[in-house]
Amino acid sequence: MNFLSIKKLFISVICTLLLMNQAMAADKVYRLTLAESWPTNFPVFGDTTKNMAKMAETMSNGRLKITIDSKNKHKAALGIFDMVRSGQYDMGHSASYYWKGKVPETLYFTTMPFGMTTPEQYAWFYFGDGMALMEKLYDKYDMLSFPGGNTGNQMGGWFKKEINSIDDLKGLKMRIPGFAGEVLAKLGAKPTNIPAGELYTALERNTIDALEWVGPSLDLRMGFHKIAPYYYTGWHEPATELQFLFNKKSWAKLPADLQEILRVAMRTAAYDMYIQSYHTSAENWATMASEYPNIKVKTFPQSVIDALKKANQELLAVEAENSPIAKEIQDSQSAYMKKARVWTEISDKAYLSN
Amino acid sequence: MNFLSIKKLFISVICTLLLMNQAMAADKVYRLTLAESWPTNFPVFGDTTKNMAKMAETMSNGRLKITIDSKNKHKAALGIFDMVRSGQYDMGHSASYYWKGKVPETLYFTTMPFGMTTPEQYAWFYFGDGMALMEKLYDKYDMLSFPGGNTGNQMGGWFKKEINSIDDLKGLKMRIPGFAGEVLAKLGAKPTNIPAGELYTALERNTIDALEWVGPSLDLRMGFHKIAPYYYTGWHEPATELQFLFNKKSWAKLPADLQEILRVAMRTAAYDMYIQSYHTSAENWATMASEYPNIKVKTFPQSVIDALKKANQELLAVEAENSPIAKEIQDSQSAYMKKARVWTEISDKAYLSN
Repeated sequence: MNFLSIKKLFISVICTLLLMNQAMAADKVYRLTLAESWPTNFPVFGDTTKNMAKMAETMSNGRLKITIDSKNKHKAALGIFDMVRSGQYDMGHSASYYWKGKVPETLYFTTMPFGMTTPEQYAWFYFGDGMALMEKLYDKYDMLSFPGGNTGNQMGGWFKKEINSIDDLKGLKMRIPGFAGEVLAKLGAKPTNIPAGELYTALERNTIDALEWVGPSLDLRMGFHKIAPYYYTGWHEPATELQFLFNKKSWAKLPADLQEILRVAMRTAAYDMYIQSYHTSAENWATMASEYPNIKVKTFPQSVIDALKKANQELLAVEAENSPIAKEIQDSQSAYMKKARVWTEISDKAYLSN
Repeated sequence: MNFLSIKKLFISVICTLLLMNQAMAADKVYRLTLAESWPTNFPVFGDTTKNMAKMAETMSNGRLKITIDSKNKHKAALGIFDMVRSGQYDMGHSASYYWKGKVPETLYFTTMPFGMTTPEQYAWFYFGDGMALMEKLYDKYDMLSFPGGNTGNQMGGWFKKEINSIDDLKGLKMRIPGFAGEVLAKLGAKPTNIPAGELYTALERNTIDALEWVGPSLDLRMGFHKIAPYYYTGWHEPATELQFLFNKKSWAKLPADLQEILRVAMRTAAYDMYIQSYHTSAENWATMASEYPNIKVKTFPQSVIDALKKANQELLAVEAENSPIAKEIQDSQSAYMKKARVWTEISDKAYLSN
């Protein structure tokens, strides 16, 4: 072997090392942490974060690894906003309306009383102005927010006593988050928010007289029917959309292909949760009658619905007056809903009346 | 440099070459071809294949490249089944009920007259037995089939003359594919299937007296209202799901990460199409009244709906008798729909009546 061939060999080694380095960069593993508002192995909501993380890991061939911490670990079910904002966690899974105490306008991105149904609201998010408005709001807090799974139309909740008129709402202590709580407060009720894991005890110990949680997809396993047998149909959360929160710095560190993998995994997991909720609700509703014969399914009297609608409109007007962003979001939602509802009536509703 | 160090150098070169080879395998570009039933740049349906291909390419960092051939290129709008089965194309985008002439049981995987709504049907596909039954059927033809995008509830179609009784259906030449065509045939109509690109001419030249296509999301741009002004609400296609077809050999050649990228891209594109259809329908319905004042929106008389329901049940019974697979799919669908519809009534339908 002469000097020239040794030189060639060296050049070849250096070239291969450079290529290897590039290949290894593409193989770099990105580890992300996610805090969720739910207890460990919480059904449907917890399935959604697992579904998202599994899709992301498989699609990235192991380059994206997401560790999910439940409420049992981080102990701050309603602290997700702060923990993701500060970078303590890269991601969160929660509900936007939980932050209305900090940022009032966040409440519009979950669901609104007498608001859009699930397909109407997804259409507003993805093909109307919804995503742009949500991005504009969360950008101020250095976070991205994405739809995180829809429960479908929620039941009006579990009540210890029957509601026959608006007088029965006065002084009623009820766990009900979001704008619906404020609507009830205007009619004299005492709304509060309590995390999932503490609901049963609160109801049992009369800390609250009533609560709404989700619907048959999740309520039955919580046992509420044992102490509050009146189960009312919904008015207040027609399309509850959970939320994936993302710290913007954590997002910016990811290469474009992994960002797209995450965007699509979150979007699919969200849609999947809507369908899983539908399935679980249908299954549970079917077994409810046979296994829990003491549950009394009720619809609020029209006088109560009318009073709630009126209070809702009045409160929306106050919010719009106090905040230009709130007004912008409200105007966008009401204009969109007006168009979409005409279509809902002529399509699905007309069909269901065949 | 002594012999030993040259030997070490050789070993190092061989090792790096092996690693490079592995890295390059991970960077290998997979090119797939897709044939769609629609003309070039067809809205909504065509957006769905483009959305899927773009997500797959971005998520795979360019390792998946999908070439989409429209009907203008392959000239066989209703030949997708054969072209994907034979391997002429790796993938297809079409509708399962188009193949009922070849494989009668394929019709159950699109939508059924008086059948499930879109969320009910997605729940059956993904959380009931739908996907397993579809896989079982298409496996015989060496293909995989995936949901390919939902139109939502379809309108009952465009008619040159008003339908006042079942007598008006006798002899009526109508473009209407799937099982609904057979239901109408039982009541004396003459159903046929015609690809999208030829519909207007067929209606204009009286080859047909009526047609259903999709709904306001796609119908208005076709111009049907100019020659058939009666626009009826739907009964026959409550949740039309398009289809991604995949040649099993083409699928098997892909590494696991790219298979997952494709599965998720197809699933997301399908859900997205449902939402895009909702949006476009809402938008177009809103402008319809002002721009096309001559369109007469109608609902079929109850006597016609009842006759259609009866004919539908009778035909389903015949199909079930002739094919054990048809019976299995029918039983699964009707059991699922029974449970899901109770939930639809207590949730969205009750809410929309508030």
